Amino acid sequence: MDFSSKLLENAVQEIAQLPGIGKRTALRLALHLLKQPVDHTQSLSNALTTLREGVIFCENCHNLSDATTCEICASPKRNKSLICVVEDIRDVMAIENTGQYNGLYHVLGGIISPMDGIGPQDLTIQSLVEKVKNNKVNELIFALSATMEADTTNFYMYKLLAPYEIKTSTIARGIPVGDELEYTDEVTLGRSILARIPFEVSISKS
Amino acid sequence: MDFSSKLLENAVQEIAQLPGIGKRTALRLALHLLKQPVDHTQSLSNALTTLREGVIFCENCHNLSDATTCEICASPKRNKSLICVVEDIRDVMAIENTGQYNGLYHVLGGIISPMDGIGPQDLTIQSLVEKVKNNKVNELIFALSATMEADTTNFYMYKLLAPYEIKTSTIARGIPVGDELEYTDEVTLGRSILARIPFEVSISKS
Repeated sequence: MDFSSKLLENAVQEIAQLPGIGKRTALRLALHLLKQPVDHTQSLSNALTTLREGVIFCENCHNLSDATTCEICASPKRNKSLICVVEDIRDVMAIENTGQYNGLYHVLGGIISPMDGIGPQDLTIQSLVEKVKNNKVNELIFALSATMEADTTNFYMYKLLAPYEIKTSTIARGIPVGDELEYTDEVTLGRSILARIPFEVSISKS
Repeated sequence: MDFSSKLLENAVQEIAQLPGIGKRTALRLALHLLKQPVDHTQSLSNALTTLREGVIFCENCHNLSDATTCEICASPKRNKSLICVVEDIRDVMAIENTGQYNGLYHVLGGIISPMDGIGPQDLTIQSLVEKVKNNKVNELIFALSATMEADTTNFYMYKLLAPYEIKTSTIARGIPVGDELEYTDEVTLGRSILARIPFEVSISKS
């Protein structure tokens, strides 16, 4: 592209480095900012800088936080002996939005994926083992995605934690609420039959 | 969404104000920045601020520019008596990329669109009339999109400039190069028949 302004060219190049944003979209965003009052751009760029410089990780659960201990870990209302292991902060937000969980979290920071060069040492698995070792935990819930890599990660953690005789569970796989049986893939349907639950339990939970 | 960090929440809200970016995408972008080195975020936010504060409009053609006269208007190689009227800076870039045009531009800053509350007084039409009045122009090319609003704008400018006996033209509407006749809509096809050109001319231009 042939820009008439070096400043514009520079801004477009910077914006286009963000994931999923190409040069055309970057140009559209830059021109949008130019149409807005100056303080829009200033507050956007301030928010980005303060975010990057201010945010730290909770030293307990590795969730993003403004303080050394995040709001969830610091809350007295939470059941501190129940830990839900998730891949990243977006999963914490998804589970928090359900309003169905009152334990703590442990954010792995990714899942084991040899294809992407991510091994167990790149995740916070060791810190999870320490927590279990120090008898702080009654039950661990593995709440990773339903993918091959996530299953591998689950199994790795399960093996690592086996000596400590801790209760581990994984979130249920089955037919999503609202879905029709006929359009569900056979693996999910098969699992949902194998992992069937007593009808009384299912109505008490809904 | 329930954020564990106020800084993150603030950044996501700011990013989500950009057009076409929702809260989920904003969160993805913010988390991406957090994974990158600090200076990535700094150079992005610097680029945005310097763009917004530094960019001005060329006082001749109203194109975006780093100086009071843009590179195109300042270039001695350009034919200054030929002016191409376009809607916005993206159209300037599109035409420049063809490498087929060596005149100047006049950026309207939009098109007449009563639905969006944009009238002739919101555009740079008056400044175009001034240029024509001062006998600086031999030919005007109307290079707006092929929409109803653009046609209205073309006609408005044509009427306004009629007293000055200037040569005006509009870019050709027709079948895009590479398209098949059978899939072309009937309005375009009809126009391309009415506006047929001598075969000798067509081969000399390709």
